[in-house]
Amino acid sequence: MAEKTEVTAEIISIGDELLIGQTINTNAAWLGEQLGLIGIRPVRTRVIGDDKVVIMEALRTCVADVVLITGGLGPTKDDITKHTLCEFFSVGLKRDQQVERHIEALFASMGRDPKTLQEVNRAQADLPENCTPVPNSRGTASGMWFEHNGRIMLSMPGVPYEMKGIMTEFALAMLRDHFKPPVIVHRTILTAGLGESLLAERIAAWEDGLGPHAIKLAYLPSPGVVKLRLSTYANTDAQAAKALVDRKADMLYKQIPELIFGEGEQTLEQVVGQQLKTRNQTLALAESCTGGFLSHLITSVPGSSAYYIGGVVSYANAVKMEELGIPSDMLDMNGAVSQPVAERMAQGVRTALRSDWAIATTGIAGPDGGTPDKPVGTVWVAVAGPNGVVSRLGNFPGTRDLVIERAAMSGLNMLRKQLAWAH
Amino acid sequence: MAEKTEVTAEIISIGDELLIGQTINTNAAWLGEQLGLIGIRPVRTRVIGDDKVVIMEALRTCVADVVLITGGLGPTKDDITKHTLCEFFSVGLKRDQQVERHIEALFASMGRDPKTLQEVNRAQADLPENCTPVPNSRGTASGMWFEHNGRIMLSMPGVPYEMKGIMTEFALAMLRDHFKPPVIVHRTILTAGLGESLLAERIAAWEDGLGPHAIKLAYLPSPGVVKLRLSTYANTDAQAAKALVDRKADMLYKQIPELIFGEGEQTLEQVVGQQLKTRNQTLALAESCTGGFLSHLITSVPGSSAYYIGGVVSYANAVKMEELGIPSDMLDMNGAVSQPVAERMAQGVRTALRSDWAIATTGIAGPDGGTPDKPVGTVWVAVAGPNGVVSRLGNFPGTRDLVIERAAMSGLNMLRKQLAWAH
Repeated sequence: MAEKTEVTAEIISIGDELLIGQTINTNAAWLGEQLGLIGIRPVRTRVIGDDKVVIMEALRTCVADVVLITGGLGPTKDDITKHTLCEFFSVGLKRDQQVERHIEALFASMGRDPKTLQEVNRAQADLPENCTPVPNSRGTASGMWFEHNGRIMLSMPGVPYEMKGIMTEFALAMLRDHFKPPVIVHRTILTAGLGESLLAERIAAWEDGLGPHAIKLAYLPSPGVVKLRLSTYANTDAQAAKALVDRKADMLYKQIPELIFGEGEQTLEQVVGQQLKTRNQTLALAESCTGGFLSHLITSVPGSSAYYIGGVVSYANAVKMEELGIPSDMLDMNGAVSQPVAERMAQGVRTALRSDWAIATTGIAGPDGGTPDKPVGTVWVAVAGPNGVVSRLGNFPGTRDLVIERAAMSGLNMLRKQLAWAH
Repeated sequence: MAEKTEVTAEIISIGDELLIGQTINTNAAWLGEQLGLIGIRPVRTRVIGDDKVVIMEALRTCVADVVLITGGLGPTKDDITKHTLCEFFSVGLKRDQQVERHIEALFASMGRDPKTLQEVNRAQADLPENCTPVPNSRGTASGMWFEHNGRIMLSMPGVPYEMKGIMTEFALAMLRDHFKPPVIVHRTILTAGLGESLLAERIAAWEDGLGPHAIKLAYLPSPGVVKLRLSTYANTDAQAAKALVDRKADMLYKQIPELIFGEGEQTLEQVVGQQLKTRNQTLALAESCTGGFLSHLITSVPGSSAYYIGGVVSYANAVKMEELGIPSDMLDMNGAVSQPVAERMAQGVRTALRSDWAIATTGIAGPDGGTPDKPVGTVWVAVAGPNGVVSRLGNFPGTRDLVIERAAMSGLNMLRKQLAWAH
């Protein structure tokens, strides 16, 4: 798979819990992203079980320059990766003093009595003789770096927080130093407001103009957002590759200005937060069908307390009346899922919490509660601001989770447009 | 990998977006779980890019009885799976009339003018000649079922909602009918309140009693929860295998009764919801550091409006004072992250929203805002109920997201214990 001009990587994720679906493999996605950022191209991920024979077979059939192995390194008895690595490299285990001191220090820092440090914990300092330990500042299982047949193999624990610490604090820099990989140029342009098919129709002519090989385009849809990723490998002239991608991106910006909300790793909630910060304005929320999810999105952004005052989750109608000032006859006449109620919720929470802006949601997330008039997925979203209130009816397809997510994204996107264009 | 007595499966997930980490491969986890439930054992997942050569190589090197392929089937130009399947099977494409009618009907149901149905959409009805179409009620890309060299290969779109529709409505039943797979017995026992290492120490003797081969135990930790999965393959005597697993599970229940909150696919929020329903009681929330996440967990459960009244996200201190009645001198004297404030928040929202129970959270989610006295991860959680209020100080490790998640799970677990044992 690998061309000489690029550095390739593959990931081996070990764990029965991944195969049987009790745990989602978020590690592989995160690693793929991090590798791309340093110009190493992920070509394959394999997920396999906690089985010595299968792990050994996976180690024997690697194809990439870098092999990142996650999982199967913990204090409990179902962990066998380390012993399989010893067998693969035909080496024994050796207790690493520095790693053992680190384990002791970690236990002490958690306020645990040194006497509770069991041999099962100390044994985590036993590492294959041919490995270079890579420090794990966040846990007891050390990273293990091997050079083997011109290939770098790095084994890390499966706990995402610990694995990420090993990578960001040490291993990414070690990989960059080792391979000095060529540059991959990519830009990911983020859109909201049109689904994948309609977006593809709208930008078909532009897409045809990308040419068959020079730039690769990928549509990356998620609820409420379609990411457009432009990429090219800059094997010889990085500047020219970047200029080409930028030129195509500029054309796209001109064609769909109102749909583009950001680039790269930005999220709609980050963009809205930044808009509010820039304007020195504040936000409050009144959520019914989204049930706190919109608030969670907003507060998942570090520093959101600078612009987010708070919100009311008004699941029961009594809360809508008492906390948000919705008149009971308005609820009786229109039902809770209606334009007047959504607008009054937004205005009510904006007044009660004295914010500049407010988003309100009311709808039927399902699976029950739908009617012929208002089927599951019917959601009114309203945004109240200094110039009044706007609202929009959504008919969101999908399961309860998807309706909630799409309604929340719709509210964020409405606020984004208001903040971008209302003065 | 496969033994004659069991049916094995592997998953091929196709998509550059998965490799470069722009999308997390939730499909593989879901498929692994569903396969397990019908007694088919997942042995491998491979994630590969949108590349004909690589897809072809993956198709050629399958090892399992069932091969589920997701991704690379959409209306946009980066989809190449279908053409690669034609090449692999040495067949051509043929337009399927029934699939074409379905695509037309789907467009009509979305209120779109038939004239907007482009050839790019109609072309989704072009399927490999040797395939049996498997209906996709949720989208335009048909599932494609192949029988090849004694193996079943099923290609599906990568959109999770559509793929899940194909599997649950048709493909799982088709697989069960085709293979009549042997039974896998497993029980997954859910615990909250102890981390993986401490839990392992506490149940070490029980674990040793499982024997070396008969029953496999896996620890599946996630923030706030450790799942213990007991499994065994019942190739000959399913009843005996089930009895053995049940006996070991009973012993575990006796040993850690207060830590076990449920089994299988249950979540803490479902268990708490069921407890409230059984008691015909209601819940309200006052969230500061969890920022709506706890409310989102509660409302992610269908039917939660039966017991969840609503909540207040009191990010700003003004909201704590005005909506929850926290005296300003209490905030001044103790700080917002303190036991008295957490307890008063819980009592305040319980009174304001007239619920039977209330959970409150106040803490420092990070990454900023920590002090030597109250570092990042310091969270007070309080539960107010008919008999008064209890509170607990947590020091949660990890990133902002993890602190939020652990604090929310801690609140749910505290309420679960109150509901289980308080009268």
